[in-house]
Amino acid sequence: MTTLIDAGLVADHNAQLATRLEADYEALGGMLARRGQDIEALTALAQRFAVAVPSWGVGTGGTRFARFAGRGEPRNVFEKLDDCAVINELTRATPAVSPHFPWDRPTDAKELRQKADDLGLAFDAVNSNTFQDQQNQEHTYKYGSLTANSSATRAQAVKHNIECIELGRELGSKALTVWVGDGANFPGQHNLRGALERYLDSMREIYAALPDDWNVFIEHKLFEPAFYATTIADWGTSFACATALGPKAKCLVDLGHHAPNTNIEMIVARLAQFGKLGGFHFNDSKYGDDDLDSGSINPFQLFLVFNELADAALREGPAFKPAYMLDQSHNVTDPVESLMNSAVEVQRAYVQAALVDRAQLAELQESNDVLLSAQALKQAFRTDVSPILAMARVRSGGAADPVACYRASGYRDKVASARPAKAGASSSGIV
Amino acid sequence: MTTLIDAGLVADHNAQLATRLEADYEALGGMLARRGQDIEALTALAQRFAVAVPSWGVGTGGTRFARFAGRGEPRNVFEKLDDCAVINELTRATPAVSPHFPWDRPTDAKELRQKADDLGLAFDAVNSNTFQDQQNQEHTYKYGSLTANSSATRAQAVKHNIECIELGRELGSKALTVWVGDGANFPGQHNLRGALERYLDSMREIYAALPDDWNVFIEHKLFEPAFYATTIADWGTSFACATALGPKAKCLVDLGHHAPNTNIEMIVARLAQFGKLGGFHFNDSKYGDDDLDSGSINPFQLFLVFNELADAALREGPAFKPAYMLDQSHNVTDPVESLMNSAVEVQRAYVQAALVDRAQLAELQESNDVLLSAQALKQAFRTDVSPILAMARVRSGGAADPVACYRASGYRDKVASARPAKAGASSSGIV
Amino acid sequence: MTTLIDAGLVADHNAQLATRLEADYEALGGMLARRGQDIEALTALAQRFAVAVPSWGVGTGGTRFARFAGRGEPRNVFEKLDDCAVINELTRATPAVSPHFPWDRPTDAKELRQKADDLGLAFDAVNSNTFQDQQNQEHTYKYGSLTANSSATRAQAVKHNIECIELGRELGSKALTVWVGDGANFPGQHNLRGALERYLDSMREIYAALPDDWNVFIEHKLFEPAFYATTIADWGTSFACATALGPKAKCLVDLGHHAPNTNIEMIVARLAQFGKLGGFHFNDSKYGDDDLDSGSINPFQLFLVFNELADAALREGPAFKPAYMLDQSHNVTDPVESLMNSAVEVQRAYVQAALVDRAQLAELQESNDVLLSAQALKQAFRTDVSPILAMARVRSGGAADPVACYRASGYRDKVASARPAKAGASSSGIV
Amino acid sequence: MTTLIDAGLVADHNAQLATRLEADYEALGGMLARRGQDIEALTALAQRFAVAVPSWGVGTGGTRFARFAGRGEPRNVFEKLDDCAVINELTRATPAVSPHFPWDRPTDAKELRQKADDLGLAFDAVNSNTFQDQQNQEHTYKYGSLTANSSATRAQAVKHNIECIELGRELGSKALTVWVGDGANFPGQHNLRGALERYLDSMREIYAALPDDWNVFIEHKLFEPAFYATTIADWGTSFACATALGPKAKCLVDLGHHAPNTNIEMIVARLAQFGKLGGFHFNDSKYGDDDLDSGSINPFQLFLVFNELADAALREGPAFKPAYMLDQSHNVTDPVESLMNSAVEVQRAYVQAALVDRAQLAELQESNDVLLSAQALKQAFRTDVSPILAMARVRSGGAADPVACYRASGYRDKVASARPAKAGASSSGIV
Repeated sequence: MTTLIDAGLVADHNAQLATRLEADYEALGGMLARRGQDIEALTALAQRFAVAVPSWGVGTGGTRFARFAGRGEPRNVFEKLDDCAVINELTRATPAVSPHFPWDRPTDAKELRQKADDLGLAFDAVNSNTFQDQQNQEHTYKYGSLTANSSATRAQAVKHNIECIELGRELGSKALTVWVGDGANFPGQHNLRGALERYLDSMREIYAALPDDWNVFIEHKLFEPAFYATTIADWGTSFACATALGPKAKCLVDLGHHAPNTNIEMIVARLAQFGKLGGFHFNDSKYGDDDLDSGSINPFQLFLVFNELADAALREGPAFKPAYMLDQSHNVTDPVESLMNSAVEVQRAYVQAALVDRAQLAELQESNDVLLSAQALKQAFRTDVSPILAMARVRSGGAADPVACYRASGYRDKVASARPAKAGASSSGIV
Repeated sequence: MTTLIDAGLVADHNAQLATRLEADYEALGGMLARRGQDIEALTALAQRFAVAVPSWGVGTGGTRFARFAGRGEPRNVFEKLDDCAVINELTRATPAVSPHFPWDRPTDAKELRQKADDLGLAFDAVNSNTFQDQQNQEHTYKYGSLTANSSATRAQAVKHNIECIELGRELGSKALTVWVGDGANFPGQHNLRGALERYLDSMREIYAALPDDWNVFIEHKLFEPAFYATTIADWGTSFACATALGPKAKCLVDLGHHAPNTNIEMIVARLAQFGKLGGFHFNDSKYGDDDLDSGSINPFQLFLVFNELADAALREGPAFKPAYMLDQSHNVTDPVESLMNSAVEVQRAYVQAALVDRAQLAELQESNDVLLSAQALKQAFRTDVSPILAMARVRSGGAADPVACYRASGYRDKVASARPAKAGASSSGIV
Repeated sequence: MTTLIDAGLVADHNAQLATRLEADYEALGGMLARRGQDIEALTALAQRFAVAVPSWGVGTGGTRFARFAGRGEPRNVFEKLDDCAVINELTRATPAVSPHFPWDRPTDAKELRQKADDLGLAFDAVNSNTFQDQQNQEHTYKYGSLTANSSATRAQAVKHNIECIELGRELGSKALTVWVGDGANFPGQHNLRGALERYLDSMREIYAALPDDWNVFIEHKLFEPAFYATTIADWGTSFACATALGPKAKCLVDLGHHAPNTNIEMIVARLAQFGKLGGFHFNDSKYGDDDLDSGSINPFQLFLVFNELADAALREGPAFKPAYMLDQSHNVTDPVESLMNSAVEVQRAYVQAALVDRAQLAELQESNDVLLSAQALKQAFRTDVSPILAMARVRSGGAADPVACYRASGYRDKVASARPAKAGASSSGIV
Repeated sequence: MTTLIDAGLVADHNAQLATRLEADYEALGGMLARRGQDIEALTALAQRFAVAVPSWGVGTGGTRFARFAGRGEPRNVFEKLDDCAVINELTRATPAVSPHFPWDRPTDAKELRQKADDLGLAFDAVNSNTFQDQQNQEHTYKYGSLTANSSATRAQAVKHNIECIELGRELGSKALTVWVGDGANFPGQHNLRGALERYLDSMREIYAALPDDWNVFIEHKLFEPAFYATTIADWGTSFACATALGPKAKCLVDLGHHAPNTNIEMIVARLAQFGKLGGFHFNDSKYGDDDLDSGSINPFQLFLVFNELADAALREGPAFKPAYMLDQSHNVTDPVESLMNSAVEVQRAYVQAALVDRAQLAELQESNDVLLSAQALKQAFRTDVSPILAMARVRSGGAADPVACYRASGYRDKVASARPAKAGASSSGIV
């Protein structure tokens, strides 16, 4: 297996921080013990956590106004895998990559899978792309893809999704994520119901092509690129469609795809209750689909999402396994740094949610002790589990401080000289 | 049949406006004819339109900060019916009243039904109230009603709903609208999923008590009175519950109960498509559940809702009959005036939506002629159908200008002297 | 003077519609006369209305996900002027063009001004661009322009703005519009106050370079491209800066640049009251800065904005002359059609606002007759002034139905063959 | 000085928790020392923190739908002071009370001040109330107070504010907070500019009555009770008015009074920069003016507000002293518990903000190290300073765990028997 960050460098880095980490870990362990909690169990839990990274996330993102390219951006899927491997080597929390087609379409899928294996990476859900026109594409998606009025356009979009499934099989993936930007910019542009009927027709064809052990994830989004009406705009529509399609169809929750003020953790609870929670695209946002780093804007909300996941896991048992994935746009940071940091933030929320004594909470709720019920969650959220996360990384072979170790490694400088700057913005996705 | 506004006064009023109305009607008729449309058919359509008024709407509403009582507010359900009758006499568009229990609970339901018959009024959906504690109520709803942790509280709330059905049967109603404010003000206050499970359990008991030809309408609302998580917060939850309960359960859309920026007409299209559109609470809003007069803030949105209803009616045929009701809080206007005016605004949107040539629109949409598709809706909305609405009223026995005629009638002065001002705010609902 | 749409074709088009237009105009005139209003005065008013078009608006816009190019897109500022001229020839409402630098930087400003003169066009406010990096630019704007930490970057941005003023002088412009995307994607990325201090320092230098008879317009925007904190995010900041800079600095209101639920017409009233209303970027939106066609989503809001402008004009007299400009992104329509249609929609709101009898409204308001006060505005808005707008165009030499006439002219086909499709997305702005 | 919670009980409570607190404090002290920070300095800082409590906050709040009274609610201002004293005795962070008139109008101001002195309490800003009609009030505020069309109504409202200043002087207060609900529910209801002109006229009279060492705080709010247009709706209007009035007028920021998605900490930075930051009403919210407990919904936002305050304090020095006050509505909790807990949450944010190394942060920002700049804030926020807050309380004479100690004291039971339940909702404010 290939290692891109020198193991000795990581070891040295960890050695330098060891004394301090041990002291912090012991201090935290004592505080937790005084609350009746075992730090070792939590560290073991942290070590088992994993979240997938998006292949397109390792390139610098942009807005409709501009993209300010970073240094050493990956030029193809192989270079993207390298960057993803670095993230996993240092965090030990991101063992899978989610590819996007046709951006990441390999000439030889076996070779790509071999490369990933060699880097210790697996492939998570594959993503189709019918929100852009590709060169030499026969039918435009300007007026929709899976919902287009034109049956030829719909057939082309369906075919692309089925090809994605095929590619995914070769890469060892088990799920297809379908996000379409289809919708309308004007009242009247299309028939709102007709568009969803066509969507369901198209999705039925895609669903029929799913292997038995696969899922298809329906991703909803309030707006952008459609600005008046988006066909799959909310969890209600996503849920109704997933129900209509069948048991392999589930709903994917992207934290940035909701109306202002929406209680997202309640949507998580609803989908879990009705058996349709497929997975997540983690990121953070303040306004719209801002695709900011996970936990950077509203970390308590991220905790509350994991609080619902912990509740669902308790109810559903080991069968409850939603897919976790980061989906962010890194416009002003080094994408590798942001993804490492974001993986840790998601892991943090996961560990914090595990701090809640659910039996005790249920009793407080049962007796309508509102204040102490609320405090039970706040206390878990307030607990700074950083030493647990660092210790989990060190024990799993990662870095105590991933960003510092990454900077010390000189990786970015190295790839900056090996990968000349791209002229345009086309090859790095910006979902 | 009793008439509260003197028929001679209405006739005089209409006679004074007749020349102008005839001229405007003819002018509009000519313009429509040049577009290939028949004004007489539209006037006949307007005459068939009806929207129910809420019994509680004839009292002055308020906010948590204050209620500024109006003159001559009705003190009981009989006086409320009088005010509702005036609205219908002058608009001829509001032949039914939606009562709210226990506010409107009669000592003798037969007497109340007789009173309504005598005024030419019927009873629309009945509304239960488990968002307030009534005097001498055994269990408080402070921590929830249908979702309460306490089984005794839930049983009390279920029993009240079943009593509402019983009362409704005696009054000739065919539907129960269930809105609960249940929810949480703090993360952790209750278990989000547990609360919905208890809601469904409670609703199953209520559903079981429904007569065969009744519907139950589930009304969702984003927030208020619960400020962190409302159990029935969005159409997705409402739809999932209505599906779980059975065919008699449908969803009710209140225009003010959605997150900012929500595309409400698309929710209407979705519920119609999936067979779960029960009805509407019409009002308008800019911020939250502002309960402003229908069409006063965003009249184009109201038109777009009726555009979806016209599309659904075309697809579903005469079986498609959602319930239309006003639900507003009149804080600074005479409630009778606001309700008359609002009934006309809803009727206006209904008639405007009928102006759309749906076959032509479908062709424009099919050919992706986005600009002309959008213009097809805008042209219908732009058409000032006021002469049609006035003529429809006159032909049905109403007033050409309901507000002017009402003012001329002196009705408010008359009831102001007959109905002494109330001391508190308790007897007029403010949903 | 050059005409791009054959005058004979326009005449024929108008002749074909003349009988119908005359009849509709007469019908409307009668209705208005019965309300005491003179249609001829309104038509004359409509003829005096003008709104500038943005040079970048004639190209197809896009989102961060994709741009679906249209046919015959202009490749340079001269071709853009041609398209703008067509818009004005058919609507007679858009005699000025607002250029954007460096996109529209001419090699010879005199030649460009001559070209515009020849097409009957003038130049409105010039726009600077420091939200993108240009090829061979010395300092990147990735971390800000007028607010950048780097003094060299700030100096470069200031210098560009001063060059824009110079170019504007040569083109006959009288104002500079400054919109910067500067801000932060993360809490902590920059010092919120420090950024505004640097902004003010930079703007003071630009302000000092303004000719005596020029204005600088400060354009605020809530978010995008910055997703956590935008330095000039709201009208309060814009107002405070314009006040700090001096009398030549004013605020520009883009209808899509506000937080959800914001009452935009009240901002217009505030800026007018405090003497800082510089002008508008008209468009419409449902979610964020959607840049949809003016009046397509919430036409009543557009009317209410003009209602405030009419109130301010009455108070301030002829000195009150805010700049009117369209600023839209046409992603799925022919930009020329959308701009023609949008100019008409803005003109429509202007004429409708003139229908309000302000003396009568003031009396109703004074007596707290809330319902009739509201109805006074609604009646004006409801009035379909389309025949007035069509007649104004015909009398001024435009087309009765600009879109139909444009389609009949074959202009788009003609330019599609003359202007080969562009490969990338870079040369058409997407503000 | 009177003590309402037995000192012995507090001492016993603290003794029971002492071992654990000492251990946690030492553990945290070690962690901070390893980061170069001194826990003792932070504890001393925490001891100096103070936030005022609102007199109306000790009663149970409600919504327009219902108020579910709690046990032992205070029936008058003296009983309110008792409850406020308990909060301060146990938290040692709330030494002042903000009274609301006429709710808290004493028959003898000296007696009230003496009572407060005796309880160790002072009086913070006084609040006027012109959003409700009081019994026997001559002119109604239904259509506005300081902005009313009626000059008599405006004079009455001005007079009430001046009386509040008088009362405040007698009580030792130094500021008047003016919040008016004035606005419109309909477009057209009033002239938007005229309303603000009348507001300024009224405020000028109030301003003129201010003692030399007083401030007047203008409190803005987006909506409720006015639902279309609120006269003082945003910080821009508040700022423009405070500027027009003079140096004693400043702006008050209530965290729940903004449009969705608003960056509140940036408003804090702006007002600080322009010298107009008067103070705060702390609470939390998810939808509108939800008045939830501080820090219960978005604790990171509260931290970011204090991060700006720390930045401003560094720049401005000791002269920078904005007023801190809680303003919450406790609908489902014991108000005393919620206020104790909320005071601690605000104090927590204050201490966390002090953890930021501002010199180091400035360097990171200067070098555009976005990721580490963001991490600098996140690390401070993540630090669980609970042991510091508890130690500060113990050292100042308060309780290690205020809620537990309060429950142990039996205070609520005691007042529940002494204070019979109120029939209505009128006497406990619900701002």
